[in-house]
Amino acid sequence: MNDTRYESGLAKLREIDGAAGEAVIESLQAIAPDLARYTIEFPFGEIYQRPGLDLKSRELATVSALTALGHCAPQLEVHIHGALNVGVTPEQIVEVIIQMAVYAGFPAALNGMGVAKAVFAERGLLDEGTAQ
Amino acid sequence: MNDTRYESGLAKLREIDGAAGEAVIESLQAIAPDLARYTIEFPFGEIYQRPGLDLKSRELATVSALTALGHCAPQLEVHIHGALNVGVTPEQIVEVIIQMAVYAGFPAALNGMGVAKAVFAERGLLDEGTAQ
Amino acid sequence: MNDTRYESGLAKLREIDGAAGEAVIESLQAIAPDLARYTIEFPFGEIYQRPGLDLKSRELATVSALTALGHCAPQLEVHIHGALNVGVTPEQIVEVIIQMAVYAGFPAALNGMGVAKAVFAERGLLDEGTAQ
Amino acid sequence: MNDTRYESGLAKLREIDGAAGEAVIESLQAIAPDLARYTIEFPFGEIYQRPGLDLKSRELATVSALTALGHCAPQLEVHIHGALNVGVTPEQIVEVIIQMAVYAGFPAALNGMGVAKAVFAERGLLDEGTAQ
Amino acid sequence: MNDTRYESGLAKLREIDGAAGEAVIESLQAIAPDLARYTIEFPFGEIYQRPGLDLKSRELATVSALTALGHCAPQLEVHIHGALNVGVTPEQIVEVIIQMAVYAGFPAALNGMGVAKAVFAERGLLDEGTAQ
Amino acid sequence: MNDTRYESGLAKLREIDGAAGEAVIESLQAIAPDLARYTIEFPFGEIYQRPGLDLKSRELATVSALTALGHCAPQLEVHIHGALNVGVTPEQIVEVIIQMAVYAGFPAALNGMGVAKAVFAERGLLDEGTAQ
Repeated sequence: MNDTRYESGLAKLREIDGAAGEAVIESLQAIAPDLARYTIEFPFGEIYQRPGLDLKSRELATVSALTALGHCAPQLEVHIHGALNVGVTPEQIVEVIIQMAVYAGFPAALNGMGVAKAVFAERGLLDEGTAQ
Repeated sequence: MNDTRYESGLAKLREIDGAAGEAVIESLQAIAPDLARYTIEFPFGEIYQRPGLDLKSRELATVSALTALGHCAPQLEVHIHGALNVGVTPEQIVEVIIQMAVYAGFPAALNGMGVAKAVFAERGLLDEGTAQ
Repeated sequence: MNDTRYESGLAKLREIDGAAGEAVIESLQAIAPDLARYTIEFPFGEIYQRPGLDLKSRELATVSALTALGHCAPQLEVHIHGALNVGVTPEQIVEVIIQMAVYAGFPAALNGMGVAKAVFAERGLLDEGTAQ
Repeated sequence: MNDTRYESGLAKLREIDGAAGEAVIESLQAIAPDLARYTIEFPFGEIYQRPGLDLKSRELATVSALTALGHCAPQLEVHIHGALNVGVTPEQIVEVIIQMAVYAGFPAALNGMGVAKAVFAERGLLDEGTAQ
Repeated sequence: MNDTRYESGLAKLREIDGAAGEAVIESLQAIAPDLARYTIEFPFGEIYQRPGLDLKSRELATVSALTALGHCAPQLEVHIHGALNVGVTPEQIVEVIIQMAVYAGFPAALNGMGVAKAVFAERGLLDEGTAQ
Repeated sequence: MNDTRYESGLAKLREIDGAAGEAVIESLQAIAPDLARYTIEFPFGEIYQRPGLDLKSRELATVSALTALGHCAPQLEVHIHGALNVGVTPEQIVEVIIQMAVYAGFPAALNGMGVAKAVFAERGLLDEGTAQ
């Protein structure tokens, strides 16, 4: 049933993205509540529920893809939070963003790192183990 | 003659994009007036004059492409205004942006919807028929 | 229920894309049957079922987005077939592809037109009303 | 007048792209002759006529952009021919393609170099000064 | 010293990409041997040497980014081989490619899966555990 | 040795990009000093040191690619400064950005021109020879 996907998707969204994810959903209610529903049901109700890959690996794959695409700064911010929330370390996030310089060019990596820096600062992580 | 394309293009630009389109043209005068002229002559003096597709369909095609490309927020804003100006409904705009989640991914659709939300709010459209 | 989305999605896929769409689904069975299922359930079981925009407009929006993105030739081929299947005229398809020269550049438009030419030739449409 | 732009554009297309450019135009006649006309009138009848930048620099800029965009192999092939036709050296072409590794990533540079290699081979240039 | 980066990079390239990686390097010798050298020294001599992220995670990040970018099929093929070579399972590769439907759209995921299918077939993996 | 690449790269970065380039490097120190080091060593310590293409042509190629890619506004700003610093004229910068309308579409050209306008204004160049 859709209800199952919606409920499990909403729980997964809260587990991974926390308040940042709920803010995305909330911001859609006035204009396109169905896009909010699809966001909950498909990515979070289906994809992030799949057993074939652990959540840390999924979040690293998302951070790398959003960095490479280059036009997804708001979603990259949400998923850097999400990666940290599920146990990815700041160092691992820094590593995949650096790696994107190879595949998408230095501008994409530099802009992705700027997003990571803002998220790390917000969470008080910049004085710790992220400098390599 | 160029003059014909320029004059008919300028009229079409005003019909479709109104003040937002004229602001784009004006902002180019100090640095690249020829780019302003090309913008009037080619897209508006040629393409939007063509009889093979109605203006509403052209604007929906533009909204879908700019949403999918992802790096064109200022132009998407102008053309959401333009779509509304030529009679596309808010609901139709919301529909093509949602549809882009399929072809360009959820981040592109979410960012496009954010632009639409700002335009709809500016035009007092958010309390009306856009919520589905 | 998922079953409903799957069944109505499969019917819609057959209505729009015909054999070309079923070939995509078939080709996924040996490697990722769940991606086949999602393709049926989400785009065709949800998006193309929505009442807010007619199928012709949806297919034109898809053709314009896939032309603009530039890296989706196989899907563009399927959806040019799809557009024709739901009643979009060859001329309208040509028009949205030409229009993409404005928003995504001439290479994207030229490559999209090459795909359209192959589809039109396959369907015996090139001697007819497509030349403007 | 349009006629002037068309005539000077066609002459410029022949000067820069030679037979490869004419083949592009010819291939459009059966499906979208107006896109052929726009390709002659706007890029070649306007942009490549402009005095503010020499043709060699324009072709190098085009080669770099098409390499970076990544989905324009047919056009990159035409413009590597065009660059050579107007006096850009094979070494300079190789240099801008290598440089794109920095801005668009190694895959874009490697794929662009594959196109250059095919063009150089076709013109008998691979035994000469292109190896650095 | 550069020599160190070159030697360790070449060893890493062979470890990860095997014959497919060496073919890329070989194909560059006649036109741009320095691009071959940079490919060895920077991605493989620097990035894949870094201790902050294991090779499996790096290859999954590369597969996800190349799938999302959409214009990198040859490199995606090399890195799906590479991922398998360092111990990523076929199922994990399928999972990150499916996930890209969310972030880059269904066409990017479908095209990436087509590349994976060809690699899996070449390695005799399609009758095994990849179907979910 | 790495030290040589680092030192010559840093000198080249200062020559080309001046304070804007150093600010990029500085901003990375708290989160990813190795990405700062790679930025100095690879683009500036290797690519911009190569003799096969003059610095003005390299900067024009970079401005054209960053304009075309569309998601690199901060880097485009740095390299418009860089182009001016090595002797490219404002008119030449305007010309390559206009040219990108052909290859990447009008939105990419318009957004690139917006970045150029801000840089030119900052350097007091808008009352001079940039209007054509």
